[in-house]
Amino acid sequence: MNIQNALADRVTALKASAIREIFKLLGKPGIISFAGGIPSPELFPTKEWGELMKDIFDTEGSKALVYGVTEGYAPLVEIVDDINSKNGVGKDFDRTIITTGAQQGIDLLLKSMINEGDGVICEDPSFIGTLNSIRSYRATLHGVAMDECGIRTDLVEEILKENKIKLIYTIPTFQNPTGITQTVERRKKLLELAEKYDCYILEDNPYGDLRFKGEVVPTIKSMDTNGRVIYVGSFSKTLSPGLRVGFITGHQAIIDRVIVCKQVNDVHTPLINQMLVERYIKNYDFDAHIQKGCDLYGHKCALMLECMDKYFPENVTYTRPEGGIFLWCTVPEGIDTQPIFKECIDNGVAFVPGSTCMVDIEAPSNCFRLNYSTMPDDKIEQGIKIIGEVLAKYV
Amino acid sequence: MNIQNALADRVTALKASAIREIFKLLGKPGIISFAGGIPSPELFPTKEWGELMKDIFDTEGSKALVYGVTEGYAPLVEIVDDINSKNGVGKDFDRTIITTGAQQGIDLLLKSMINEGDGVICEDPSFIGTLNSIRSYRATLHGVAMDECGIRTDLVEEILKENKIKLIYTIPTFQNPTGITQTVERRKKLLELAEKYDCYILEDNPYGDLRFKGEVVPTIKSMDTNGRVIYVGSFSKTLSPGLRVGFITGHQAIIDRVIVCKQVNDVHTPLINQMLVERYIKNYDFDAHIQKGCDLYGHKCALMLECMDKYFPENVTYTRPEGGIFLWCTVPEGIDTQPIFKECIDNGVAFVPGSTCMVDIEAPSNCFRLNYSTMPDDKIEQGIKIIGEVLAKYV
Repeated sequence: MNIQNALADRVTALKASAIREIFKLLGKPGIISFAGGIPSPELFPTKEWGELMKDIFDTEGSKALVYGVTEGYAPLVEIVDDINSKNGVGKDFDRTIITTGAQQGIDLLLKSMINEGDGVICEDPSFIGTLNSIRSYRATLHGVAMDECGIRTDLVEEILKENKIKLIYTIPTFQNPTGITQTVERRKKLLELAEKYDCYILEDNPYGDLRFKGEVVPTIKSMDTNGRVIYVGSFSKTLSPGLRVGFITGHQAIIDRVIVCKQVNDVHTPLINQMLVERYIKNYDFDAHIQKGCDLYGHKCALMLECMDKYFPENVTYTRPEGGIFLWCTVPEGIDTQPIFKECIDNGVAFVPGSTCMVDIEAPSNCFRLNYSTMPDDKIEQGIKIIGEVLAKYV
Repeated sequence: MNIQNALADRVTALKASAIREIFKLLGKPGIISFAGGIPSPELFPTKEWGELMKDIFDTEGSKALVYGVTEGYAPLVEIVDDINSKNGVGKDFDRTIITTGAQQGIDLLLKSMINEGDGVICEDPSFIGTLNSIRSYRATLHGVAMDECGIRTDLVEEILKENKIKLIYTIPTFQNPTGITQTVERRKKLLELAEKYDCYILEDNPYGDLRFKGEVVPTIKSMDTNGRVIYVGSFSKTLSPGLRVGFITGHQAIIDRVIVCKQVNDVHTPLINQMLVERYIKNYDFDAHIQKGCDLYGHKCALMLECMDKYFPENVTYTRPEGGIFLWCTVPEGIDTQPIFKECIDNGVAFVPGSTCMVDIEAPSNCFRLNYSTMPDDKIEQGIKIIGEVLAKYV
């Protein structure tokens, strides 16, 4: 008996997310982690949530504990539609459903849209969770380089000319892992290309609300006139990732299929989690809560950049984000950041080596990702100093 | 632009779960529903859970709200392993992970194991959630009839002789939808066949703990010596379905792939839900809670059968389960229960027409499923009487 025969072709070559694996290393006490991608735990409204939750069980316990509809808890769907409309998201042909985190929205959308061998364009580097999901449906990934204006649409068009592409995956605002924001011109161009070459855009926007500098750039979805764009959002970065509540908005013909896939995936997103988010937003000042996050992350980002300016070797460059929770560092070409990562871990500091975020995960990368949203100020300075010392040995 | 072109082949032909659609009809007040599949809401420990949850937020809020590991909250995995060992589940080569309901365990297992076109054997009728998930991976379903001893293993072997089969899906104990329990001889035979024809068994056991009559029959997994059997369990029927907490135990080479699929599906099962289940089982008498359920369902099942004996036409037959929450009725051959269902709905009573549970969902069925766990006693009598009256017109 060979247990490997039990496995489907689509999963035999799949690698576990390197970030999830790094995550497991972070249990050791005292480690300074710039590897995560979560809101600052000091912002969690734990006291309010404990009370809200007790109240949910006391007053609506039986309703919260039975099966819910797959589409999501209706009052929360309403709230999401309100939030969406502020971002120009949601036309007559669209519908919104709640998902168990944005990741589930992405995964089930890909299940609903991608045939084996379909072409998918993405930023390179990009969000590893989506890249792995795309791989699990055996699509062909075409990574496209970015510059300071976002994905290089000239390169996108070159690929579209040569290949049949089904979907363009993009995180236009405060991109993961780079922190770069696509300009409005690039967004328009991307949508134009999707129209011209008859493909779809998956706009992933978990960080959009976390702007601490500069001007708001309209979502690509807000420019969508006929259902080319599917939009994914999340409460993981504005409220809590552990709650696993996100949403997806797109043309109803597509979302209807996502619902069928969700029926057989987890039936519905747990109700108490949806009710908690709904009640919190309804009864508390969610905008003020987000503003608090923006202020904090703006401060922490500035602090981290200041420390990097001070402690990093001169030939290390990095992005200067206007929002979100990540920035992206580049060391001179030809230097792999993997050994640097290992030495930093030995010295008590973690980050995410660039290779894990690339379309070609086997190739070495001269980049790495830093998260600035979670560590206290003194740890940011201490950790950046340590990374700077390790970098000095390599670059 | 034709939005249908956006869809993947695997989902274009998928039908939404008819049960989920029926579920939406049940909103109208006063309806007597024998359609659901949930524990009696009177058993939900809402008071205890409200307090536990408040305590979780007060004392471990920050831990509960960040990302968790994909494998599941370790203290809950430990508890599940304890529960499993009482059922003979879990050998050295196995590992257990927590899933967002058993449905997710099943769906991700199928994603990990099933290639397009693979053969899958199941009981016919079977659980619609699994059947639809199997369809979404474009496997070939082979339905096998049951008798009072469970799946007909002679027919299973006939199929195995003629077809390459990858997986046998079975709910051996208090099967959904029939309530039938497979005998130990059939279980042994099924495992023997899996060994002989080199295929795997997915043993789905959400109802096993809810025995109110007769002798415990050992799980198929307890007879597994080398990883042929993957076992799925759930807290949906013993605690609450809305919480979405289940688990899957199988050979680690397979479960490792399920984990990678779960990483890209929902990252992890929400932590507060896992912590709630863990704390409840640790701090309260879970066995006594289950016993309360068994007592209640035993009573309700007996009552429903008594009413059926009284109100149903003589040529309607039905199973007499020893546990679980469903029983299965058969009207004379050639009569479709779909119009009976519609007329019952008009008269304020719901059940699940048999066709929705069949491998061939297009064909008419002379069967239907009744759930006895949720309705109060007087509604059981009232509802069964109404169904009896409608049946009398058709049979």
